[in-house]
Amino acid sequence: MKAVCLHFLDRLSWIGTVVVVVAKENHDLMLNIVQKFDHTKVNVVHGGTTRHRSIFNGLQAFCNTSNSLTPKPKVVVIHDAVRPFVEEDLLLKITLAAKEQGASGAIRPLVSTVIATTSEGYLDHSLERAKYRASEMPQGFLYDVIFQAYQRCSELDFEFGSECLHLALQYCGVNAKLIEGPPTLWKVTYKRDLAAAEAIIKETLSMSACIIAGAEAEATELAKTLQKNLNMMETDVIPCAKESNAEYLSKTRNFIHLSMTGSNFLGVLEMVKHFEDTDHARLYPVVIVWVQLNMAKQSVDSQKTDELTAFRSLASEVIQGNILLYGIQIEHTKVPEQWERSVERLTQITVALIRDRNAALTGQLLHV
Amino acid sequence: MKAVCLHFLDRLSWIGTVVVVVAKENHDLMLNIVQKFDHTKVNVVHGGTTRHRSIFNGLQAFCNTSNSLTPKPKVVVIHDAVRPFVEEDLLLKITLAAKEQGASGAIRPLVSTVIATTSEGYLDHSLERAKYRASEMPQGFLYDVIFQAYQRCSELDFEFGSECLHLALQYCGVNAKLIEGPPTLWKVTYKRDLAAAEAIIKETLSMSACIIAGAEAEATELAKTLQKNLNMMETDVIPCAKESNAEYLSKTRNFIHLSMTGSNFLGVLEMVKHFEDTDHARLYPVVIVWVQLNMAKQSVDSQKTDELTAFRSLASEVIQGNILLYGIQIEHTKVPEQWERSVERLTQITVALIRDRNAALTGQLLHV
Repeated sequence: MKAVCLHFLDRLSWIGTVVVVVAKENHDLMLNIVQKFDHTKVNVVHGGTTRHRSIFNGLQAFCNTSNSLTPKPKVVVIHDAVRPFVEEDLLLKITLAAKEQGASGAIRPLVSTVIATTSEGYLDHSLERAKYRASEMPQGFLYDVIFQAYQRCSELDFEFGSECLHLALQYCGVNAKLIEGPPTLWKVTYKRDLAAAEAIIKETLSMSACIIAGAEAEATELAKTLQKNLNMMETDVIPCAKESNAEYLSKTRNFIHLSMTGSNFLGVLEMVKHFEDTDHARLYPVVIVWVQLNMAKQSVDSQKTDELTAFRSLASEVIQGNILLYGIQIEHTKVPEQWERSVERLTQITVALIRDRNAALTGQLLHV
Repeated sequence: MKAVCLHFLDRLSWIGTVVVVVAKENHDLMLNIVQKFDHTKVNVVHGGTTRHRSIFNGLQAFCNTSNSLTPKPKVVVIHDAVRPFVEEDLLLKITLAAKEQGASGAIRPLVSTVIATTSEGYLDHSLERAKYRASEMPQGFLYDVIFQAYQRCSELDFEFGSECLHLALQYCGVNAKLIEGPPTLWKVTYKRDLAAAEAIIKETLSMSACIIAGAEAEATELAKTLQKNLNMMETDVIPCAKESNAEYLSKTRNFIHLSMTGSNFLGVLEMVKHFEDTDHARLYPVVIVWVQLNMAKQSVDSQKTDELTAFRSLASEVIQGNILLYGIQIEHTKVPEQWERSVERLTQITVALIRDRNAALTGQLLHV
């Protein structure tokens, strides 16, 4: 989650410095992530024993002249790493509102009715849902407002409090501007939320694909049909994966490489090499589906065993570099309905491989 | 969601009648589900234009003498179909508390701070999180309490209210007993929640497997190693899928059928027949992983093409009946480390197939 979140924040040019607050025991792990992904404007500081102490530690990093941070900023945005799907649009609104009003925060409608309980565990009263909101993150502040609030607040606040907007109101008299965020802002809290987050990431990664068609007429024809069938994805068809197509290759993380049986998988090898050189699979896995179009009938038997072995060993090698390589064999037929069914099935399998990104199935040669 | 929830409620012997409230346009769809799954104690009634009107319609079904419902019950439990993972233990607690106190409801701790907003969209104040809870479902009531509450409440309540506990308090003076439920009670609300629900269902379905080992020594040996490797699942090893093993076969929805190459897949066929006869795959898909253990070396070539064709056509046939059939070939080797690696890989692929339950990959013969 932290890596996904950081990657996003690091890309935004209007953000000057990112301070990551982590528990002492995760400090090295975090430094490794920062280094691995070349996050140049990220600073890692230790958390405290409570949420407010951790946030205050983060804010104090700007006063600490011994580190390399830029001077204290005008506006600071506080965010939870467990909300990895924050969008630039909302971040910008929060930042501008904080600059104007002194404080701002993201809100969401309440999903459940909120009720007050008696100390014996009975219903005391229920709140009118329309008047209340769930307070989410990110929240933005003029640096001086939130810093002062922390300087003025009590030990009790530090120990049991959790809401920065409350501190800004109570200790600096600033009523935060509230901005409704999208549902994806939710806090990844329970195990089920991890499954939901994984599904969102996989869906985002599966939104586009690049089809490499080669030069042969039959493959080009197949590429066109495949492109039509893959209408839920944005697809490009290009003739080859040479470096001149670097732009297409960097646009997506899913590749469907068509070739005729008998031709070797040199094209796949070139592509793998390109991704290794450009580090394209660093944060998210790249999927390559190698589709072999079979014109002759007795294809399975004529499949060269050593080529198959080479394909499998390539797959088990490149998975180390986050590249997932799968194979599909499709038999060509001149019977139109049969061919249509085959291509439909090829589409389904391709979509399943791209969506699932299942590491256990790399190196498999599937059949249509 | 409704089907999952209904299936669960229908199994509980201490629940006399289940009334499902659905929108008019979904009435026939719901009746089909009730019929398909033989839900004998389920009654379907039309919903109203708001939540409260729908619930009241459901309650009134008990007063309607023209239908076949049992006389009005002492206690009624109200639940949302979009919370399909409710557990019997909680339902029972809610029911007993309702019988004793007049009303009861499930609660959860608040995930986010709740704040009151001004009409201009600014923070008014934030609530102290510890004093409040999210009100969830199920909720239980003495039938007379909730029925009376609905008879006494105003048009405004019917139109804009949403909380039954509030009505019981306001119109009958009953303070509901609150009972903390597990996180799985959450309301499937957003698209991401569907992914989370799917993950929970898939995880539940993957908790056990039955390995059918056959009679040959090598297969029995492999079955034992596989059982050891599959330590995240509860597994049984049985020699064959004959009817005498019906008990084992009904305990799980995942089957790993081992056979030696050359032996046909008669065992798989028998198993499929058994599941079709017993309707075992009606609600959730059954996964059969057919593992072929290959003793000779040149296996791929010696694989009988017609057997493979028969396997694929069987797979595409049984998928109509919710049975997902996959094949894996594993080459036997006498080199211990190599064999260990192969069985490890077999385990990974098997687990992936069982967990993912991917319909697009049925009929594929994978290789280790």
